[in-house]
Amino acid sequence: MTDTPMGTPRWVLGVDSGGSGLRVALAPVPGARSTADDSRTDLAESRADTAVSRQPVRTGPDGIDAGHLMEQLVPMAKALLDEAGGGAVKAVAVGAAGMATLGDDLRARLPEALAEAFGVRRLALAADAVTAYAGALGQRPGAVVAAGTGMIALGTEGRTWHRADGWGHLLGDCGGGAWIGRAGLDAALRDHDGRRGGSAALRARAEAFFDGPVSELPAKLYPRTDRPAVLASFVPEVAGCAAEDPVAAGILQAAAVHIADTAAAVCPPETDCEVALTGGLFGIGDPLVVPLKEELAVQLPRARAVPAEGNPLEGAVVLATALALDALALPCDGRLLHVPDAKD
Amino acid sequence: MTDTPMGTPRWVLGVDSGGSGLRVALAPVPGARSTADDSRTDLAESRADTAVSRQPVRTGPDGIDAGHLMEQLVPMAKALLDEAGGGAVKAVAVGAAGMATLGDDLRARLPEALAEAFGVRRLALAADAVTAYAGALGQRPGAVVAAGTGMIALGTEGRTWHRADGWGHLLGDCGGGAWIGRAGLDAALRDHDGRRGGSAALRARAEAFFDGPVSELPAKLYPRTDRPAVLASFVPEVAGCAAEDPVAAGILQAAAVHIADTAAAVCPPETDCEVALTGGLFGIGDPLVVPLKEELAVQLPRARAVPAEGNPLEGAVVLATALALDALALPCDGRLLHVPDAKD
Repeated sequence: MTDTPMGTPRWVLGVDSGGSGLRVALAPVPGARSTADDSRTDLAESRADTAVSRQPVRTGPDGIDAGHLMEQLVPMAKALLDEAGGGAVKAVAVGAAGMATLGDDLRARLPEALAEAFGVRRLALAADAVTAYAGALGQRPGAVVAAGTGMIALGTEGRTWHRADGWGHLLGDCGGGAWIGRAGLDAALRDHDGRRGGSAALRARAEAFFDGPVSELPAKLYPRTDRPAVLASFVPEVAGCAAEDPVAAGILQAAAVHIADTAAAVCPPETDCEVALTGGLFGIGDPLVVPLKEELAVQLPRARAVPAEGNPLEGAVVLATALALDALALPCDGRLLHVPDAKD
Repeated sequence: MTDTPMGTPRWVLGVDSGGSGLRVALAPVPGARSTADDSRTDLAESRADTAVSRQPVRTGPDGIDAGHLMEQLVPMAKALLDEAGGGAVKAVAVGAAGMATLGDDLRARLPEALAEAFGVRRLALAADAVTAYAGALGQRPGAVVAAGTGMIALGTEGRTWHRADGWGHLLGDCGGGAWIGRAGLDAALRDHDGRRGGSAALRARAEAFFDGPVSELPAKLYPRTDRPAVLASFVPEVAGCAAEDPVAAGILQAAAVHIADTAAAVCPPETDCEVALTGGLFGIGDPLVVPLKEELAVQLPRARAVPAEGNPLEGAVVLATALALDALALPCDGRLLHVPDAKD
C-alpha cells in the first residue's frame, strides 16, 4: 500500500446487490493505526456516502451477470468518488443475494473488471448473509439471523461459517416473512372452510388487505411471479392482531421457535456468544421479538441477543475496510466469502 | 326422450379433463326402469369404453379453452361410438380441474358445441371434486376427500355442496402430496443444517431420490414450473421410511390430522355418514391410511370410512347417466355443478 502518494484520500467501496436493486457505499479508509474494530465505529458514525439503483442485477445462464453489475456500479461509484473529491479506491466488497450458488460469473469476471475500472486489486465477494453478518456483528464471532421474506442464519467462531436454512419458501425459510404470511392466510382459509385452526380475525384482515373474499386468494396469488413477497406482505396483519387473536399469536410463537432452532444450529459453543437479529421482518417488533427472545433463552441460554449494528451495505463496507487494512478476520471459504489472491 | 327410435343404442359420455390430459368414457344408458343407483352398479361392472388424450386442455385468458377441449373430445368420442356400433348420445358430463373458477368459456360454449357435434342437449359441467365425489359415492350423501398433489374435501347432505381446502400448495392443500413431500424435504434439510426436527433417514432418501446433496435441492426445484408435483414426487420416500423413522411417521400423522380436519368440515351431520377417500395419494396405503382412519374415528365418530367405488371419470359417467335418466340428485349450484336448462 505504498503506491498511493501521501495525502491522496483512500477509499473503500461496499456494494449490496439484491432483489430490490444495487446499493453502493463509499467510505474512507481509517488511519493506518486503526483496527478493523475501529472501522466499525467509523461506520456507526455514518461517514459513508451511498448511492442506490432500483434496477436489480440480471441473472442469466451463468448466474448473476457481472457485466450488468459493472454497468450500474461504475458510474455510481465514480459519481460518489467525484462528489467526495476524488482519491484512490483501496478495496471493494460485493455482497449479493445468491452469491454462493449463482456467483460464478462474478467470481470469474469482477477481479479484472474492477482492476480496470478503479485500479483496485483487493476484492471480496460475499453472500448477502455474510454482509448481513458483518453489518450486524462486524468481525466478531457469533451468530446472525437475517430475516425478511426469507430466513437464514449464519454463525462463526472465526474459523468456518455455519449456515442454517435459507432454502427458500418451499423448502425452508422457516419462521421468515413468507412463512408467517402463509400461515396467516392458511388460518384465514380455515375459518372460511370451517376447518379447525381457523381465525375469524385473520380472515377479516385478509379480506380487507387483499380486497375481496378469501376464496379469491388463489386467483390473486398463483399467477404472480413474486409469490413469496405477496405472502410476506401479510405479516404486518398477522402481527397486528396477535395481541387479541390466539391463532395469530400462535403463528408468531411457532415462527419464533423455528428462528431459534435455526440460530441454535449455527451459534458457536462459547458462552456469552452474541446473536444478532437483522432484516426487515424484525421491524414488526414485540409480537415476534418477545417470543423469539424467550425461545432463545430456552434453546441458547449461553447466548446474548444483541441489536444489529448495521445493515448489509454497511457490512460490505466492513469487509472492504478490513481488506484495505489487511485485517480480514472472517472465514474465507471460496463460496460464502471469496477473496481472490490479494495483489496491491 | 321419445325421439330415439326403439332399438337404437343409447349412450352417455363422461369426460375428465385435468393436468395429465383428457379422458373420455362411453357407457350405455341403463334400462328405463333402472335408477341412478343401479347405474352405479353398471359402472362397477366396467361396461364403459374409454379413450385417453395425454394433451391437457389449454387454459387461456377466458379460462379453460372450450374449443381446445372440443377439438380433442369430438374425434375421441366419435371413435368410441363407432367402435360400439353407433347410436345416440343422450347426455354428457364434463368434469374439469378448475371448473368453478376457470370454467366460464366451457359454460358459455359447450352447450351449443355439444348439441352440434352429437345432437345432445343434456349436459353437466362439474368441478373435478364433484366428479371425484360422484365416482366415490355415486349420488349418496356423505363426504369425499380427494387427495393427490393437492387436497380437497367435498360433502353434501343432498341440498348444497360443502367444500373445504383445495386452495393450492401455498394457501392450503394441507396434508396432500405436495404438503407431505415438502415436509419430508424440510426434515432432510433440517438434518443437513443441524436444526431440530431433522431426519437423517429422509435426508438419505432425498439424496438418493434427487441424485445429489440436499443443498442442491433449491437449484433443482425453484426453476421448475411444476414445483407442487416435484414436491409430491417425494411422498413415497416419506411413506417408505415411516415404519423406522419417527420424523417421517410424524409427518404422515400430521397429514392425517389435516385431512381429517378437512373431512370434518364438510361431512353432513347424519350418523353413519359415509366418508370416502379417493385419489392417488392414498395409494401409499397404511402409513397414511391407518393414522387417518384413527383420526377420523376421533374427529368424526359418526362417520364410516368407505373405499371409493370409482374414479372421477366414472363419476362423470354417473352424472351423465343420472342426467339421461332424469335422476340427477346431487346439488346443482351453477359453479361446482352446472346443468344448463335441459332440453331434449
